[in-house]
Amino acid sequence: MAWDFETDPEFEKKLAWMRDFVKAEVYPLEVIASEVDDGQFLRLIRPLQEEVKRQKLWATHLPPDLGGQGYGQVRLGLMHEIEGASQWAPIVFGNQAPDSGNSEVLAHFGSAAQKEKWLSPLLEGKVRSCFSMTEPNTPGSDPTQLSTTAVLDGDEWVINGHKWFSSNGMIADFLIVMVVTDPDAAPYERASMILVPADTPGVKRLRNIPTMAGEHERFGYGHAEILYENARVPQENLIGRPGEGFKIAQARLGPGRIHHCMRWLGVSRRAFDMLCERSLQRQAFGGKLAEKQTVQNWIADSAAEMQAARLMTLHAAWMIDKQGPGAARKEIALIKFFGAKVLHDVIDRAVQLHGSLGYSADLPLEEMYRHARAARLYDGPDEVHRQSVARHILGGYTAPEGIWPREHIPTRREAARRKFAELLEHHTANL
Amino acid sequence: MAWDFETDPEFEKKLAWMRDFVKAEVYPLEVIASEVDDGQFLRLIRPLQEEVKRQKLWATHLPPDLGGQGYGQVRLGLMHEIEGASQWAPIVFGNQAPDSGNSEVLAHFGSAAQKEKWLSPLLEGKVRSCFSMTEPNTPGSDPTQLSTTAVLDGDEWVINGHKWFSSNGMIADFLIVMVVTDPDAAPYERASMILVPADTPGVKRLRNIPTMAGEHERFGYGHAEILYENARVPQENLIGRPGEGFKIAQARLGPGRIHHCMRWLGVSRRAFDMLCERSLQRQAFGGKLAEKQTVQNWIADSAAEMQAARLMTLHAAWMIDKQGPGAARKEIALIKFFGAKVLHDVIDRAVQLHGSLGYSADLPLEEMYRHARAARLYDGPDEVHRQSVARHILGGYTAPEGIWPREHIPTRREAARRKFAELLEHHTANL
Amino acid sequence: MAWDFETDPEFEKKLAWMRDFVKAEVYPLEVIASEVDDGQFLRLIRPLQEEVKRQKLWATHLPPDLGGQGYGQVRLGLMHEIEGASQWAPIVFGNQAPDSGNSEVLAHFGSAAQKEKWLSPLLEGKVRSCFSMTEPNTPGSDPTQLSTTAVLDGDEWVINGHKWFSSNGMIADFLIVMVVTDPDAAPYERASMILVPADTPGVKRLRNIPTMAGEHERFGYGHAEILYENARVPQENLIGRPGEGFKIAQARLGPGRIHHCMRWLGVSRRAFDMLCERSLQRQAFGGKLAEKQTVQNWIADSAAEMQAARLMTLHAAWMIDKQGPGAARKEIALIKFFGAKVLHDVIDRAVQLHGSLGYSADLPLEEMYRHARAARLYDGPDEVHRQSVARHILGGYTAPEGIWPREHIPTRREAARRKFAELLEHHTANL
Amino acid sequence: MAWDFETDPEFEKKLAWMRDFVKAEVYPLEVIASEVDDGQFLRLIRPLQEEVKRQKLWATHLPPDLGGQGYGQVRLGLMHEIEGASQWAPIVFGNQAPDSGNSEVLAHFGSAAQKEKWLSPLLEGKVRSCFSMTEPNTPGSDPTQLSTTAVLDGDEWVINGHKWFSSNGMIADFLIVMVVTDPDAAPYERASMILVPADTPGVKRLRNIPTMAGEHERFGYGHAEILYENARVPQENLIGRPGEGFKIAQARLGPGRIHHCMRWLGVSRRAFDMLCERSLQRQAFGGKLAEKQTVQNWIADSAAEMQAARLMTLHAAWMIDKQGPGAARKEIALIKFFGAKVLHDVIDRAVQLHGSLGYSADLPLEEMYRHARAARLYDGPDEVHRQSVARHILGGYTAPEGIWPREHIPTRREAARRKFAELLEHHTANL
Repeated sequence: MAWDFETDPEFEKKLAWMRDFVKAEVYPLEVIASEVDDGQFLRLIRPLQEEVKRQKLWATHLPPDLGGQGYGQVRLGLMHEIEGASQWAPIVFGNQAPDSGNSEVLAHFGSAAQKEKWLSPLLEGKVRSCFSMTEPNTPGSDPTQLSTTAVLDGDEWVINGHKWFSSNGMIADFLIVMVVTDPDAAPYERASMILVPADTPGVKRLRNIPTMAGEHERFGYGHAEILYENARVPQENLIGRPGEGFKIAQARLGPGRIHHCMRWLGVSRRAFDMLCERSLQRQAFGGKLAEKQTVQNWIADSAAEMQAARLMTLHAAWMIDKQGPGAARKEIALIKFFGAKVLHDVIDRAVQLHGSLGYSADLPLEEMYRHARAARLYDGPDEVHRQSVARHILGGYTAPEGIWPREHIPTRREAARRKFAELLEHHTANL
Repeated sequence: MAWDFETDPEFEKKLAWMRDFVKAEVYPLEVIASEVDDGQFLRLIRPLQEEVKRQKLWATHLPPDLGGQGYGQVRLGLMHEIEGASQWAPIVFGNQAPDSGNSEVLAHFGSAAQKEKWLSPLLEGKVRSCFSMTEPNTPGSDPTQLSTTAVLDGDEWVINGHKWFSSNGMIADFLIVMVVTDPDAAPYERASMILVPADTPGVKRLRNIPTMAGEHERFGYGHAEILYENARVPQENLIGRPGEGFKIAQARLGPGRIHHCMRWLGVSRRAFDMLCERSLQRQAFGGKLAEKQTVQNWIADSAAEMQAARLMTLHAAWMIDKQGPGAARKEIALIKFFGAKVLHDVIDRAVQLHGSLGYSADLPLEEMYRHARAARLYDGPDEVHRQSVARHILGGYTAPEGIWPREHIPTRREAARRKFAELLEHHTANL
Repeated sequence: MAWDFETDPEFEKKLAWMRDFVKAEVYPLEVIASEVDDGQFLRLIRPLQEEVKRQKLWATHLPPDLGGQGYGQVRLGLMHEIEGASQWAPIVFGNQAPDSGNSEVLAHFGSAAQKEKWLSPLLEGKVRSCFSMTEPNTPGSDPTQLSTTAVLDGDEWVINGHKWFSSNGMIADFLIVMVVTDPDAAPYERASMILVPADTPGVKRLRNIPTMAGEHERFGYGHAEILYENARVPQENLIGRPGEGFKIAQARLGPGRIHHCMRWLGVSRRAFDMLCERSLQRQAFGGKLAEKQTVQNWIADSAAEMQAARLMTLHAAWMIDKQGPGAARKEIALIKFFGAKVLHDVIDRAVQLHGSLGYSADLPLEEMYRHARAARLYDGPDEVHRQSVARHILGGYTAPEGIWPREHIPTRREAARRKFAELLEHHTANL
Repeated sequence: MAWDFETDPEFEKKLAWMRDFVKAEVYPLEVIASEVDDGQFLRLIRPLQEEVKRQKLWATHLPPDLGGQGYGQVRLGLMHEIEGASQWAPIVFGNQAPDSGNSEVLAHFGSAAQKEKWLSPLLEGKVRSCFSMTEPNTPGSDPTQLSTTAVLDGDEWVINGHKWFSSNGMIADFLIVMVVTDPDAAPYERASMILVPADTPGVKRLRNIPTMAGEHERFGYGHAEILYENARVPQENLIGRPGEGFKIAQARLGPGRIHHCMRWLGVSRRAFDMLCERSLQRQAFGGKLAEKQTVQNWIADSAAEMQAARLMTLHAAWMIDKQGPGAARKEIALIKFFGAKVLHDVIDRAVQLHGSLGYSADLPLEEMYRHARAARLYDGPDEVHRQSVARHILGGYTAPEGIWPREHIPTRREAARRKFAELLEHHTANL
């Protein structure tokens, strides 16, 4: 593969098809979404999903034995960039969170029995799932503070804790819950993931948490607050081995961040297109907005930053494809905070250019703006990713020799004179 | 650099050799430079240049018939990144400005006679050259304001004008001067480049202009102010055809910007290494600086920005290699202003971390900082490049259909209901 | 008045009373607002308003003959800072937009008849008003593009046009509409303000425009889209003289911007308090958030920026009080864009520190964040205010003599030597 | 400055005189400085100093008994703003560092004997002084790491250590040295200041450290590196009481920071004037630079930021005058980092607008730019001041009650309903 992230012509055709399809069939859903009910909406979505399956582009993140195409992260990334342009595209392409991530977890770490019982119906669209990790009272980025616990009592796990921002929690049929199973282990080996049927006694689903994102709880989407009070599940509901919770989370989130960043670029591109179009149409103070230097700065900076985020993300994807996700940890952390800022900044400029129209819900910009704010928070706040990059770089760091002259007192001059004599001799000898 | 833009293994070996060579042989020159005279310094440089020639890495920007290796811009870029780490490396590798650019101009646009008379001795190191374009009283980015003129009188060009920041002007043997030859032509077709021997009567070399970069006029380096007062040169001294001045300048500057940006990354990397090393060594308020979050932010942001600038620059280089410099004009303009900011920001953080030591000349950081300020100005200020990117994007721009719903009055609702009915029918028909 | 903006002790007591009152009586309204209906809410508000009237703090922006206290802008500003802390405070203190501004317009520019007919019932709370200026298809900052017109037909104005973001438009009893009455006049003398009863035939109130601010249309608040189609009103409904529209708008908006900026500071302060409190309570990675340097930077920068915005706003208020609003035009433009950025940045940091909680509607931060985005747009976007400041400064600008040495060619040296001789002589003569 | 912080009319006259004097007599020194030798320069300076003394504006920072005028910090600040416009003004007004600070130390903390022996000749200009605090191997902001020690041996202090950036060190007649005298005391009570005659055996003055500021060692100015090797001075050379070193430093630096910040504003104003003037003179791409929106943004932002820094600094000065320096510690820390950034940003924009001319030494901008970089480092780096502000704010912080609703689980709704009932009852009872 050329490092420009060119892919083979056949796959390029797939991407072209996706772009046309999203524009022709998915964009129109946006105007309709708020005017129809869930049932009506599903009747519109279903045939589009069928078409995607016919194109063999359905749920491509899955392993080939489950229907995926064995695409690596670069290809998946390019697909997610296209899907990012419309909030309804992931549903149409079988990639909607949290089901997509949960199906990956089960595909890679689930037992045969778990796959049969939970994964199959999930892939068939018969059940829905929730990912329940974040806690209201502890920072998710610090593993030592996770407070929800599962204690083995006979052959059952007894779960107690308080979670929120559990995606799809109110309507899911089962939940994958992050719990401490061994509080005395090393920080990143304390937790496990456990499958919990939603109707388990003791699972109290309190509410969908209202957020800046506003009401878009259609199709069950929403972030639930859930109490686990002595909720009991069979021992075999633990996914993988005890203590593997963070390992699985990392595997789930790593490539997921590539997908996030690429979808952000799809969103950014759309905002950028609106920025460009408006600047060419709107007149003010004797000229098009496109002729104002501030607007030109916005366009140029947006173009540069989007290009930067795009190349960095595809590069990280390429590293995963070549060397595995472990090798790209720094690169993935980089794009998480860098990309989230680009997303915000491009949308922010588009809002500003559109003035009151940009602030109104007549355009999708204001919704993009609200959603973009979350990008600096979910999957860990910027601050944690920056810290993680710095630690990654500094861990075992040794400075290249000779990068700066160590003597800062005047003895350096004498050293220089000595060095000169040596060098001269050395070269003379060599000539 | 296996982790990154791979080139073939043989070339990777060349790069590895360069890195070692620069560290072992070029870095030491820095401590010596201020302690020896020009003659002594040249005695140190000469054997290094010979070694570079033996390695077939000398002046690789030239076409193969003049000794280049036919490396494209990606490979040249990777070499310049290494050379950027030390201010003396370009001399050692036959890439010092402005001789490198001038030799390219003559190689690509010079007549056979010009090549023989000027290019050959230049490549042999027997003469030195100057590039004389910038004017004190006109903005270089606006072609309509160029004020130095050449008028044909018989078979001689008579040149009049005022230039400054003419690199190497005080010590050059000949100058390539940008002059208006046809003031009535289209803006970008008014100017030509003319070869002017330095000893031509009427060429008044006033001074080397003192700048923020400080005194580093060793080996003739410096930015001269020059008056041309009825300076006469033969008609055949015009390079290319009349009116091609801006075309040649563009050809000279395009790839040159790739090289600049890659050298900036070499500088940035060195500052970054000093940032990392110091943060691990220095204690303050009960911990290493590396443990302070501000410092971690600096390291993470620097890593992200350098990665962004690097990928963008190599991507632009790759576009030139694949489709020619014309295809990459936007990309080259992007990296010029984006890269110049990264360069400054990384160095600035390193200065700040080192405190008074960073401000002192005991470290190379303060010199890097002063030089970096020029990067936002030469070859056109940031503002002009941003404007050029915006115009490139907006020229002939058409917004993708459907990116936003055009109706913002409530008629949209009705439209949505109609659309829903249509879609439903459409899908039903298709199923 | 001391320039620290200390006021007399008696007024300081008023402010202290306001602070306590807002905390004790207004804050609690916030939790209740979403749980009660309009009627219930008004029953809660009414007694608070009565208390404010007893304190002689009701609608203090009005002239003394209408019940105001003759407070200047500094005092009003300090009051608005306190009111800014809660969205319900302006209603409680008789300062809610757009009624407050509209009542000022009528108080200062209305005829006796207009005052009797419209202002009196407005002050008594018997009717509500709308300000209808912004147009969907023209930039509000460019007076030459205003497209809504009023043409005199007999003794009636016939109004045609399309407005939106007309505050309170859907529930107002009358509207103050900005219309072009003399399209051939100088740009800022083309428009007038006309009083239009809401039930005038031809006034088509289409909808409240949904915005990023979300649904807070309680008590009639909202931004309406309105068509004026041959709406006829009596000639005497014009406010002031024909062509005074922009003059009145300026008078209405100037002090209004002081009030905006001070309310923003009230909002910022509350977000800042949440930032501080949370940083002291929350633990992560082995320490309080307050001990992380990033958080300390946020607190320090917020403190500095709030201090800057506050002093600049009070200083502008002080200039208005001393020299009239005309004298402070540059200062008011400065605080508009400077203050809007501070508002956003402080809230943004508080959101980030609170993580998912900050993004949720469980805290007021997410609402503040959405509202803050509008501050960079209403009353003119940042870009227009920056431009206006620059033009104000550059209009009639003359550089102080001697700020830089005019000769940049080496003749300066000679000049310096001459100057030295002169000076020496001059001083010697003087000693 | 009637438009601003008014002082009494008589003092305003003094300021007006200063402004004229600096413009007429001090600016011209700049072009001359590099062309004459020290002796010649002093012959030019001396009569100006005499004129300043006649105006009773000489060394006004001193207490009245030593010739000061009893001006508070607001007045001193306004004077320093004017002096800041030219690097030679502080010498002319008797305020040059480090003598001004050292004389304050001796005036406020010196014994009668110290005053007679050291202060008197210093004020008479017969001797010069050095302030020797910074160490190359320890961060100056962390008191626990100070490594230079003084041990009492009989009735002599024996000093050992390594200092640098000791202002005026190479030419001073005596040095005030910061040393650890009680290593076991509380962190801020370990150090003392001791007077050391420059000719004391063991005082090894190694060199003036070259810095980004370049060569401006005229009149002895420079930053020396000094070794103290068993340097012995009489016991009575300790200033104040043992352990008061940091207390004296704080007293020396606090008001000094006001003066710094005001001088920075003088520098900024001059750069700003050059920015404005050039924008009106220079044409590019069919219009004045003043008509480009980017340039307008620079002017508007510079105006806003300078206004912010100025009001904040004068406000801090006013607090010192009213409540003593202790009360303004937070305010002084704020302006230190806020002001240093404004200084850099304004100069940076002026450099950018002037292009190659701005980068050249033909204008004072490039020198301003280099000096401005130090402002973020001396007297403590930005990071330390930010940390200090945050700690000041958070120390003993208690959040105002009621700023946010504590219940984030749905019990809030019930609480709200209860609260509503209560309030209603409460109001009803009150009506």
